Amino acid sequence: MSISTKHNVTVEKVSKSRIDEIDFDNLVFGTTFSDHMFECDYKDGSWQNPTIRPYGPLTISPAAKVFHYGQAVFEGMKAFKDDNGNAFLFRPKDNFKRINISAKRMAIPEFPEEIFFEAMHRLMELDKAWIRPGFGNSLYIRPFAIATQAGVSAAPSDQYKFMILLSPAQAYYTGDVRVVFAEKFSRSANGGVGYAKAAGNYGAQFYPTNLAREKGFQQIIWTDANTHEYLEEAGTMNIFFRVNDTLITAPTGDRILDGITRKSVLKIAEHMGITCDVRPVSVKEIVAAVKDGSLKEIFGSGTAAIISPISAFGYQEEVYELPKSNTRYSDRFKQALMEIQYNKGEDPFDWRYPVG
Amino acid sequence: MSISTKHNVTVEKVSKSRIDEIDFDNLVFGTTFSDHMFECDYKDGSWQNPTIRPYGPLTISPAAKVFHYGQAVFEGMKAFKDDNGNAFLFRPKDNFKRINISAKRMAIPEFPEEIFFEAMHRLMELDKAWIRPGFGNSLYIRPFAIATQAGVSAAPSDQYKFMILLSPAQAYYTGDVRVVFAEKFSRSANGGVGYAKAAGNYGAQFYPTNLAREKGFQQIIWTDANTHEYLEEAGTMNIFFRVNDTLITAPTGDRILDGITRKSVLKIAEHMGITCDVRPVSVKEIVAAVKDGSLKEIFGSGTAAIISPISAFGYQEEVYELPKSNTRYSDRFKQALMEIQYNKGEDPFDWRYPVG
Repeated sequence: MSISTKHNVTVEKVSKSRIDEIDFDNLVFGTTFSDHMFECDYKDGSWQNPTIRPYGPLTISPAAKVFHYGQAVFEGMKAFKDDNGNAFLFRPKDNFKRINISAKRMAIPEFPEEIFFEAMHRLMELDKAWIRPGFGNSLYIRPFAIATQAGVSAAPSDQYKFMILLSPAQAYYTGDVRVVFAEKFSRSANGGVGYAKAAGNYGAQFYPTNLAREKGFQQIIWTDANTHEYLEEAGTMNIFFRVNDTLITAPTGDRILDGITRKSVLKIAEHMGITCDVRPVSVKEIVAAVKDGSLKEIFGSGTAAIISPISAFGYQEEVYELPKSNTRYSDRFKQALMEIQYNKGEDPFDWRYPVG
Repeated sequence: MSISTKHNVTVEKVSKSRIDEIDFDNLVFGTTFSDHMFECDYKDGSWQNPTIRPYGPLTISPAAKVFHYGQAVFEGMKAFKDDNGNAFLFRPKDNFKRINISAKRMAIPEFPEEIFFEAMHRLMELDKAWIRPGFGNSLYIRPFAIATQAGVSAAPSDQYKFMILLSPAQAYYTGDVRVVFAEKFSRSANGGVGYAKAAGNYGAQFYPTNLAREKGFQQIIWTDANTHEYLEEAGTMNIFFRVNDTLITAPTGDRILDGITRKSVLKIAEHMGITCDVRPVSVKEIVAAVKDGSLKEIFGSGTAAIISPISAFGYQEEVYELPKSNTRYSDRFKQALMEIQYNKGEDPFDWRYPVG
């Protein structure tokens, strides 16, 4: 093991890479981790000792506030490689900004931009071989921050740990995605933490999602908690509707995550000359549109899934199948996004971020 | 260190107690832990190897789902000791039931009742010296369950850890508690997890509570997320209002925790012949009541605080001071609860649970 410090990040390299043990053709999303991880602790009012070390377990107090009060936030990003071996991140500054927006809402101190990007560059340099070329392959990047102070009283922690894990990935969702519109359960409240990537937002969806799965749906499209009349997001994806040739999606706000893939889709759509309508989307209009044939597509957007076409939705015990088509917007957006991500074409919006 | 197994719980005792190092007159709530803790892991579909071992750190994957998705629940309980050295829990079956209600909502497997109570008895036996007699002194008990499977994909864990920590405590709140009624932020949504002791419910309150503290309020009384017109709970306490001689509190439901101290207060009040009105409580009526002098008291109830009288509330930039009195309901309820808890009087409702 060699230890060195460069750009203020101390690096402790693995003595031998585990990469040869990995079956890159049969990855289960989020379960395989690369050789190295980044770790930085907050104490006495500042982030200290940024370190990259071999991926491995943490030693942490059972009284750490993250276990008791869910004081934790995260991000999801990806690194892509082109056919010449160049690696890129996709809009990483947006992820960086967002983790600090999430952190603020969860009373976690903001993380410094310079250390974040230094860590990212060093990690990519060390674990570049874990980014596989080819459409669909990527290295999923998971920055997160957790409250580590030992204390079972409900007040903010005075110690935190910021980490970055790397996990090689193939496509996230495969096959048809069937969703159900939420009629009883909710994801977030006005004035709550729905717009943040706060850990507890995700765990809270597991039980309703299990119930949906039992009925044959993979995901829930959450509706507003107050009336269940408006379609919001899918918990790990923002949601788009194509009615005739118009692309419709709900505005972000208190309750809806400001998805980076979401805003990229809107930008690409505009660039393609597609009419975009960002406004509240009612359940009623979508049910009417599927009945009169004007609803052409529903799809989700998110870092893990990129674009997930939805094949059917359930509402009030009815299941509505969506039309099949070879001219889907979702395919065009996915293609356009991947061409940028994998350096196959122009980058008109300056979204690619080279990392070696 | 001696290791023994009894009643299926393996016990690894400390070689030397740390109790002599503890300053029991200057405890900070939730920061000091007793000699032992309980730990039980869920894997392959069952809870396995219940163990009591010396309090100490955990070794856990940085990819454990609790860190990323907040899949975690907890309880708060207390052990009390009478002047003859007998120790008691207070309504522990209610806490046990509730942690499983919370667990279900967070897609965590329910914990077996028999192991829970065996663990509790063995812990109390081992760490009985940590329960100090005297009003206000207690041993705070923190059962909790966390998702331990390593995986950064948003789906329920298939591994969990259930633990119990013990923390000696004096009174939780001291001095006057000033609260502010929520006008912008919210704690929970209809169809959400507000009724559960889910970890993320607590971390989500830290930021708004920090803002309230900057304005001189220690706690927020949360209102309904939809209209902010109805008073719900205080996040770590249920809330009671005394208008003239009637005790009023909001009904529990999706958004409000079914507090054990709350229902004990209602039972005691009924026993005392006090009229109780369990119904939605509007901000408007409470502001009107403070103005016309009919609002006599506001107080919070919870395991940590027992009963917390509130001295003032803020709403729409006004601060309303509550009248001082020597005949407060809150004092009567606190006295009645403590007499039961510390075995100073009758136990008409069978709430004391002897543990040695």
